[in-house]
Amino acid sequence: MRLFYDIIADKRDNIALSDEDISYFLESYLTGQLNDYQMSAMLMAIYFNSLNERELKTWTSKMLYSGKVLDFTDIDGFVVDKHSTGGVGDKISIPLAPLLAELGFFVPMISGRGLGPTGGTLDKLESIPGFRVNINVEKFHRLVREVGFSMIGQTSEIAPLDKRLYALRDVTATIESIPMIAASIMSKKLAEGISGLMLDLKVGKGAFMKTYERGKKLAQTMQMIGQQFNTHVDVLFTNMDEPLGYAVGNSLEIMESLDVMQGRHVPQVSELTVTMAATLMKTFGMVESLDEGRRKAEAALKSGKVYEKFRTLAELQGGDPHSLDDRSLLPLSNKKVEVRSEYDGFVAEVDALSFGKALIQLGGGRLRQEDSIDPGVGFIINKKVGDRVSRGETLYTIYYGSTAKLETAKEYLDDAVRISGSKVPRIELVLGVL
Amino acid sequence: MRLFYDIIADKRDNIALSDEDISYFLESYLTGQLNDYQMSAMLMAIYFNSLNERELKTWTSKMLYSGKVLDFTDIDGFVVDKHSTGGVGDKISIPLAPLLAELGFFVPMISGRGLGPTGGTLDKLESIPGFRVNINVEKFHRLVREVGFSMIGQTSEIAPLDKRLYALRDVTATIESIPMIAASIMSKKLAEGISGLMLDLKVGKGAFMKTYERGKKLAQTMQMIGQQFNTHVDVLFTNMDEPLGYAVGNSLEIMESLDVMQGRHVPQVSELTVTMAATLMKTFGMVESLDEGRRKAEAALKSGKVYEKFRTLAELQGGDPHSLDDRSLLPLSNKKVEVRSEYDGFVAEVDALSFGKALIQLGGGRLRQEDSIDPGVGFIINKKVGDRVSRGETLYTIYYGSTAKLETAKEYLDDAVRISGSKVPRIELVLGVL
Repeated sequence: MRLFYDIIADKRDNIALSDEDISYFLESYLTGQLNDYQMSAMLMAIYFNSLNERELKTWTSKMLYSGKVLDFTDIDGFVVDKHSTGGVGDKISIPLAPLLAELGFFVPMISGRGLGPTGGTLDKLESIPGFRVNINVEKFHRLVREVGFSMIGQTSEIAPLDKRLYALRDVTATIESIPMIAASIMSKKLAEGISGLMLDLKVGKGAFMKTYERGKKLAQTMQMIGQQFNTHVDVLFTNMDEPLGYAVGNSLEIMESLDVMQGRHVPQVSELTVTMAATLMKTFGMVESLDEGRRKAEAALKSGKVYEKFRTLAELQGGDPHSLDDRSLLPLSNKKVEVRSEYDGFVAEVDALSFGKALIQLGGGRLRQEDSIDPGVGFIINKKVGDRVSRGETLYTIYYGSTAKLETAKEYLDDAVRISGSKVPRIELVLGVL
Repeated sequence: MRLFYDIIADKRDNIALSDEDISYFLESYLTGQLNDYQMSAMLMAIYFNSLNERELKTWTSKMLYSGKVLDFTDIDGFVVDKHSTGGVGDKISIPLAPLLAELGFFVPMISGRGLGPTGGTLDKLESIPGFRVNINVEKFHRLVREVGFSMIGQTSEIAPLDKRLYALRDVTATIESIPMIAASIMSKKLAEGISGLMLDLKVGKGAFMKTYERGKKLAQTMQMIGQQFNTHVDVLFTNMDEPLGYAVGNSLEIMESLDVMQGRHVPQVSELTVTMAATLMKTFGMVESLDEGRRKAEAALKSGKVYEKFRTLAELQGGDPHSLDDRSLLPLSNKKVEVRSEYDGFVAEVDALSFGKALIQLGGGRLRQEDSIDPGVGFIINKKVGDRVSRGETLYTIYYGSTAKLETAKEYLDDAVRISGSKVPRIELVLGVL
């Protein structure tokens, strides 16, 4: 076998690695023969010199098969999932998963926690009293078969190699590598046994990807990996300059998700949920057109069955279903303050990043992975970009725990909302498809 | 203080690091707060994005002052050292150090061991029975003052940070970074308390630097660091396509060094030793011209005093002086075989790299740092490039331990010597100065 040094040096010198070298390198890492410091040198070399298609397929495959891979090949229906690159107020996964299940899909959804300004599906679900996201893979598998979907957190049973590599990238400034991001997401998603993935690629101030071009590169890389593993990746590029919908904060976002699932129309949130469901239906030939898909998805939401599905799953995962029927049982701070406009005009900006950072200050988000979350704090955005506003009208409402935290959070919001004297168009939510 | 992640990310993104960041990063590494895997990511980022002059000065300074720094400021004379980037048959340090001492310099010489095709001064010295290269810094300091020179191995007392970083670079494919090589050499040399350094930059097949351009970049970087620390760096670029001199192998090279020290003229070896001594004398204003320096150096060698100086030091470092007076006491295998020319003609090539690799096979060199050395094996090159040779004449002689090792070594030498039908010029040893 070749020396680890020479394999790292090849990548450093932009020489493509053979499949044998990649396999040997990654297997040696799993067995402990290759050290973290050698892997981090390799990861930095990959940051600079990337991986070509073949290398990336092999790398992804080693991560994918480092743990359990779910098998739904005998199931009567399409197995799909959705992934968002993360944003502020992005709760789409929560109404989308039961909607897809109601439409006939099977959805084994493994999600993450919030970190930095970006929220996480798991934290939101856990604001439902009793809801457990750490069930084992066997039960997860069974719930998907029986209910049509399940929503859990990352487990060391799925793609453990990715878990180790991610932890290393996270402390060595090698997170921001497009092939590594793509391989990381895809290995976990492919381990779910899916044949279709809806990728919501967030672009803008409150997103990981600040520019459309870099987002496009990531999306193309993920599609390419998907092709190699016979999994279709649909991509929507969506705007993340302002928070998505009206609610920012864990239990507030659950409430907004319940609105959508119960058939109420929530601008942006209902639209995006329905668009994604329709896109997947079209991709898998379940409808003739996107419009037909939209109509079916909207009808499903209106029927109340999507809410019923979610209620069923929540209960099966330990959640208290009464807290969904009676939202006063959800945790929400009783301390709130309204921030009012000092001007007449039109809302020109509601800065997603500022709200994301302010949520951390309130205790509703995480700066470090080990931080705990207060599910009952957050914001309601009363006025969105393009809305007309009069002096004295409420721009947004802050739900807070302590006055000290409120004050710090407010500092982040000083310039978060900008009012213009002239009319401002609404934000175009969907920027493109791939 | 800034996050380690952000400091690594700056270098990755080609943003110059502040002196505070470099100091904090390196100090944290020494205290163990910063991990090897974070350092190796940084080293790989530096490989790609280099360090500017200010960064390199700060980095070198942190390594230099991480351990003891010798102080010769009160001494009446110039304190100098010599460094070679390494080659095959390169024993120049051994006659040069006592020659410089005889000429009035003080030479605190810290050398390395051989690794790969390149030999090491320490291994050669240790082929003198009893010679100890691992004396402590205090005694080393005293010997330099009293004898004018001393030759020891790297110690954890000198630049321990460099020692740790070198060990990490050695397993993470980050050795080949010019600023890191320059900082590594210079931090150790500057810790010797020198004000002048003779750098022998080997270029060619048997050298670390295969091209003149890359060698020049290293030399310029070392000169630049030298300037920042008020230490003059003289540079000679010398050819390493064929082995230097006639002897390759540890005790054989000691014997050839003794020839030089005893005033016998050994082509290439005597010349280079004298040129380096003359260069340093000129730099420090001890002579008017290089030629005057050469004459003085040659006279010193002829006087027998250089040999006496070496004999004195060897004895003070535990070596048996009789083994120098009577070379039959030096270890040398009594098994030898002569390899003869199959053609009439001129020697067109004696491939240094092949001889270096063959020496490893004989047991006279190291593949891994932990390998032990057989001091009594090696080669005498009977015919050098440019020499006329007749069919049946000896090209080179192999001193070997076991027949098995001889056979493996021979495989590396199959094409090592090339004979041409037409006249071939001798190798120009000195390629340039800087």
